[in-house]
Amino acid sequence: MKKVHNFSAGPCILPQEVLKKASEAVVNFDDLNLSLIEISHRSKNVVAVMEKAQNLVRELLNVPANYEILFLQGGASLGFYTAALNYLSKDGKAVYVNTGTWAKKAIKEAKLVGNIEVVASSEDDGFKYIPKGFNIPADADFLHITTNNTIYGTQYPEIPKSPVPIIADMSSDIFSRPVNVSDYAMIYAGAQKNMGPAGTTLFIVNKDLLGKTGRTIPSMLDYQLHIDKESMYNTPPVFPIYVSMLTLDWLKNLGGVPAIEKINAEKAAAMYAEIDRNPLFVGYTAVEDRSKMNATFNLVDDTHKELFDSMWKEAGISGINGHRSVGGYRASMYNALPLESVQALVKVMQEFEEKVSVKA
Amino acid sequence: MKKVHNFSAGPCILPQEVLKKASEAVVNFDDLNLSLIEISHRSKNVVAVMEKAQNLVRELLNVPANYEILFLQGGASLGFYTAALNYLSKDGKAVYVNTGTWAKKAIKEAKLVGNIEVVASSEDDGFKYIPKGFNIPADADFLHITTNNTIYGTQYPEIPKSPVPIIADMSSDIFSRPVNVSDYAMIYAGAQKNMGPAGTTLFIVNKDLLGKTGRTIPSMLDYQLHIDKESMYNTPPVFPIYVSMLTLDWLKNLGGVPAIEKINAEKAAAMYAEIDRNPLFVGYTAVEDRSKMNATFNLVDDTHKELFDSMWKEAGISGINGHRSVGGYRASMYNALPLESVQALVKVMQEFEEKVSVKA
Repeated sequence: MKKVHNFSAGPCILPQEVLKKASEAVVNFDDLNLSLIEISHRSKNVVAVMEKAQNLVRELLNVPANYEILFLQGGASLGFYTAALNYLSKDGKAVYVNTGTWAKKAIKEAKLVGNIEVVASSEDDGFKYIPKGFNIPADADFLHITTNNTIYGTQYPEIPKSPVPIIADMSSDIFSRPVNVSDYAMIYAGAQKNMGPAGTTLFIVNKDLLGKTGRTIPSMLDYQLHIDKESMYNTPPVFPIYVSMLTLDWLKNLGGVPAIEKINAEKAAAMYAEIDRNPLFVGYTAVEDRSKMNATFNLVDDTHKELFDSMWKEAGISGINGHRSVGGYRASMYNALPLESVQALVKVMQEFEEKVSVKA
Repeated sequence: MKKVHNFSAGPCILPQEVLKKASEAVVNFDDLNLSLIEISHRSKNVVAVMEKAQNLVRELLNVPANYEILFLQGGASLGFYTAALNYLSKDGKAVYVNTGTWAKKAIKEAKLVGNIEVVASSEDDGFKYIPKGFNIPADADFLHITTNNTIYGTQYPEIPKSPVPIIADMSSDIFSRPVNVSDYAMIYAGAQKNMGPAGTTLFIVNKDLLGKTGRTIPSMLDYQLHIDKESMYNTPPVFPIYVSMLTLDWLKNLGGVPAIEKINAEKAAAMYAEIDRNPLFVGYTAVEDRSKMNATFNLVDDTHKELFDSMWKEAGISGINGHRSVGGYRASMYNALPLESVQALVKVMQEFEEKVSVKA
């Protein structure tokens, strides 16, 4: 079959070797002659998967000892609510930066919990940039940011210097660049971009800052309880965690986060160079805030849209339509996407330019 | 490799043909030359999976039109909390029956939401029976029951006649026998027994009874929002839902719930007949409340425990150790367990009896 260049925005491309191992485990896991998905989550084999996944996160991101690593359910969307529930004190406040759809949802859910102040927003300009130089009150419980904004294609070039611990939704750029975990109260991320399939969410939580809210938290929403139960308070999503473990192991073998950061920079450079060079395309976001994960761009002239769409489809390219809320195009270049796929898209953009200029 | 008789209490045995199809979809789904777990949940192929899974639930359980079918995350454990959040009115009360560990957890989480009354309990006798003839106040918002209690091996032989709608945690016996859905405000069930792998939870919710609590519900915990978004408010756990769809399709092809009910009755009859006949074993629960899903039993004399354990392991039997909180043995006979596996266990119990009597 024809090679597919998978630019899907998430769930997204995973390494071929991971898919192969995952497929095998569904019929015969660890030579038990049983499937991974039909055995107890408390069996030593499944417990070993959970522990290995946690250890890989700790190793890949240099997670300090006072942080715990949890694999939970509900997505970052449930994290929007539980972040505030676990870290916002009853009489305190938290400050949020609004950089797009997901940040807005985080703000909305946190407001159900307590006092939230939005200290910066780029909504006035279609979320095309990342706000900078905003004031972060030193008495806030935390600052919440969304490090990469998949829909608009923006990414914090640098994490703000903050006088208070940061909570960051890193769903779409975790494991793509180094992180100084000590700056954070919590980092959370849905698995389905750089970590694995949909169905589990990574939480890296600062233990020292828990238990200070003054409220009773329902069991399944309580990070401390999940820490006490080692992410096994109830049956965890075994398969998504297993595939995440395989993906993190693949990343480790590749050279870890510094190695993938270099590859991601190469892919992004090739992609944006073509967007900037090619007179038929224009980038969507402010140049300095461009995401290395999601390149968003538009046709300068939409009359050639049909031609371009037929050309990239013909080349085996998949998933570059922009998010339904902004239109245009979005090339998502997550960790597992090979440079070769970016080169294939660039080639199509160049051939498209030739065809259009011949017509003109 | 040797055939394994998989009596795991959950996650548990799934049909071989389901595992094979699931394994294939992890490398190439719907002949897309892409994995099921690396494409958008909004692609038409994944949306079709979600719709087929919902339709199969509706068909297999004859779900009326005023009920919606949701596949969510968080397990029944999160359902303990959201059940009350969505159906218990601010000034109302709900009544619960305490039949074991899971029922107790449901009660604990619901108490965080509002006024809960426990109208019956079998805790006084180690949860060996299902309470009967208790009073259900007609002014309660709902009655909550746990239809099958995996740890103790009890199951409601009949659902109580209730003047108020029932909410039932059917995690461990859904799709094993017919259900009159109209009696319920809600039915919920973790997938990992009779429906699929861990990582998704089925909710069958009566729409007409929603929106009456008088409280604001966080987005991810709000059934109405999930109904409005067709279980795709955020990225759903695609793989667990896909495997659930395959398992429900397998059940449909087998003849549906009436067919499996008959098979389950045969398996349970064979199992309990041997427990009752064999002088070396004794059942744990009241005979009239025995679960057709989980048969719990003990050795009359523990001195032969080592011999029995070595014999069943030798026969390829897996997963019959009792839950760590009660000990003894538990043979879980979920839908996908073949009669042949029960017969293999019965044979071992008989051979064990012979060996012990020779020794004596």
